[in-house]
Amino acid sequence: MTIQAPQHIQKIAPYQGGKPITELAREMNLNVEDIVKLASNENPLGISPKADYAIQEAILDIARYPDGNSFALREAVSNKFSVAPEQIVFGNGSNDILELVARAYLSSDSEVIYSQHAFAVYPLVTQAMGAKGVVVPAKDFGHDLAAMLAAVTDKTSLIFIANPNNPTGTLLAKDALYAFLKQVPPHVLVVLDEAYDEYLPAEYKSQAIGWLKEFENLVISRTFSKAYGLAGLRIGFGLCHAKIADMMNRVRQPFNVNSIAQAAAVASLADDDFVARSYALNQAGMAQLKHGFEQLGLTYIPSFANFISVKVGDAAAINQKLLQQGVIVRPVANYEMPEYLRVSIGLFSENAKFLEVLTRIMKP
Amino acid sequence: MTIQAPQHIQKIAPYQGGKPITELAREMNLNVEDIVKLASNENPLGISPKADYAIQEAILDIARYPDGNSFALREAVSNKFSVAPEQIVFGNGSNDILELVARAYLSSDSEVIYSQHAFAVYPLVTQAMGAKGVVVPAKDFGHDLAAMLAAVTDKTSLIFIANPNNPTGTLLAKDALYAFLKQVPPHVLVVLDEAYDEYLPAEYKSQAIGWLKEFENLVISRTFSKAYGLAGLRIGFGLCHAKIADMMNRVRQPFNVNSIAQAAAVASLADDDFVARSYALNQAGMAQLKHGFEQLGLTYIPSFANFISVKVGDAAAINQKLLQQGVIVRPVANYEMPEYLRVSIGLFSENAKFLEVLTRIMKP
Repeated sequence: MTIQAPQHIQKIAPYQGGKPITELAREMNLNVEDIVKLASNENPLGISPKADYAIQEAILDIARYPDGNSFALREAVSNKFSVAPEQIVFGNGSNDILELVARAYLSSDSEVIYSQHAFAVYPLVTQAMGAKGVVVPAKDFGHDLAAMLAAVTDKTSLIFIANPNNPTGTLLAKDALYAFLKQVPPHVLVVLDEAYDEYLPAEYKSQAIGWLKEFENLVISRTFSKAYGLAGLRIGFGLCHAKIADMMNRVRQPFNVNSIAQAAAVASLADDDFVARSYALNQAGMAQLKHGFEQLGLTYIPSFANFISVKVGDAAAINQKLLQQGVIVRPVANYEMPEYLRVSIGLFSENAKFLEVLTRIMKP
Repeated sequence: MTIQAPQHIQKIAPYQGGKPITELAREMNLNVEDIVKLASNENPLGISPKADYAIQEAILDIARYPDGNSFALREAVSNKFSVAPEQIVFGNGSNDILELVARAYLSSDSEVIYSQHAFAVYPLVTQAMGAKGVVVPAKDFGHDLAAMLAAVTDKTSLIFIANPNNPTGTLLAKDALYAFLKQVPPHVLVVLDEAYDEYLPAEYKSQAIGWLKEFENLVISRTFSKAYGLAGLRIGFGLCHAKIADMMNRVRQPFNVNSIAQAAAVASLADDDFVARSYALNQAGMAQLKHGFEQLGLTYIPSFANFISVKVGDAAAINQKLLQQGVIVRPVANYEMPEYLRVSIGLFSENAKFLEVLTRIMKP
């Protein structure tokens, strides 16, 4: 008898991320400078200059272990979002937050509900715990909250909601979401993944943090990887009732968030101007892409995030042609959207190059 | 009914790390510059200048997600240690490697064997999976391999061996370890944690990587946090049979290792001189501390790592007095060593300050 991992581990199909620029350069023998990557919903503006400065300071002490309690960052998040320090859990990216919830609360008896077309990490963390994933068909590419509620059983431990959703960009109305939370039974945890909240216009921004007092079964997940531009550093956080945070911290690796990420996040929270510029650039770039798609007669899913999914037909073939010409976007066949490509909003020049190459491919 | 985490999660007592310098400064109203921290087995020389340069380059692209496959680092580790690329798993520190093994291979039916006085993360990752930890009493503060072998049952999934061990600094002889591996049944995975290998004199260095061809059930864990000085960045790796690496990668977070850590690690592997200097400084500092302890009439556990555990009597009280005077070391009562303090080897001046303060406390 040799070593075997359990069946549910053997069956996991690992996450497929956006292709790194260096990888495409190797594969296609291209120059890194000639490649445009609009595949991972990254911030084309980079990071806040304040974060840059904080990183330089933090490097001086990099041989030390990080502060496992993220004292300074905890204070900053607590102040910024008006939550108690003990309501905050920090993660190695918000991926870590999603996993910590799963590891603290799921067993092989659990059922976990998420939507069709929702973020790929939800089924991954569910399957890694040997729990049963329950996929609820989407409605107009978004979450069907009534159907998700109807899917709840005695065994349901967790519901994942992405708002806005990745890769569709759809947004749930605030009152609908609130009514949903009111109806979820208290034995079920709801993880509300708000990775893209900073890209929402003011009137659409989430108010869920204010709901934490009312819902003890709510976990809000946020990230510094998107509008804050810190994807390469890996930092996100969860906001929830202190007793849930306590459980998540018990399964958290003691030094899960590196020192550079902590310092950069503190500085980023103090730079509203950078986030405002990132928002404005995204609005302009979104308009640019939509206009380009309309010129080409392509339909798209209206998006509230920093990416847009466009219907191109044979997406796999078109993606291959885009790659050959140095443009990386994201095919979403693994999200049951084989005719779509998800395109992140880039700089004006990057969006323009993508549209130009796409036009050449679609109207040769 | 409200939400409850499973009993085994509720019972986890979180890891207690070394107190951060900034935390002591706040608590005792001290200046950061006046504090000496010899509590976390960090490299007092900092990091390789080559790593410093690589970090500056990597920062330029920090808004991008990391390469989830660690292509460049994989190539560097593969070449340095003569293992195939598919035999390597990268972790957010080697803590992540220990956890990935547990998550891929343990269930609530599993038994996991580790030694008394062994690294605290072994019981933590075991308990987080709801598995049963089997603690084997130590022999002369080190692993009792015969007793560990005798503890194996049909349910044993995993054995953790730390070599050198933290916090005792003990080392197993190579032939004893090899004979042990020969006798471990093939359904049991052995994780050999070699975090401190770079601090071993040449004749004691591990040859376990060469044993991977023979033992399909062996996982070797290494870190960049110690002699390479990258503790604040979080990076470690596991070396093992490709099919075990494959299972670990299935439960690995897709972007678990940040970009800065990857770049710094590649550069660090190319700087043998920095590791040699770190080794030499450690040898000298170890001699300095031993001499100081002998002057004070204190016994210690001979150590093969970058720390030493010294018997001081009422360690909690003495630790408190050291803290008041700005010296952070590590009490190890949670390792069933209430009379000992674990002291990391620092710079000459740091070791001297610690000895001076300790002398004032013990011989007032």
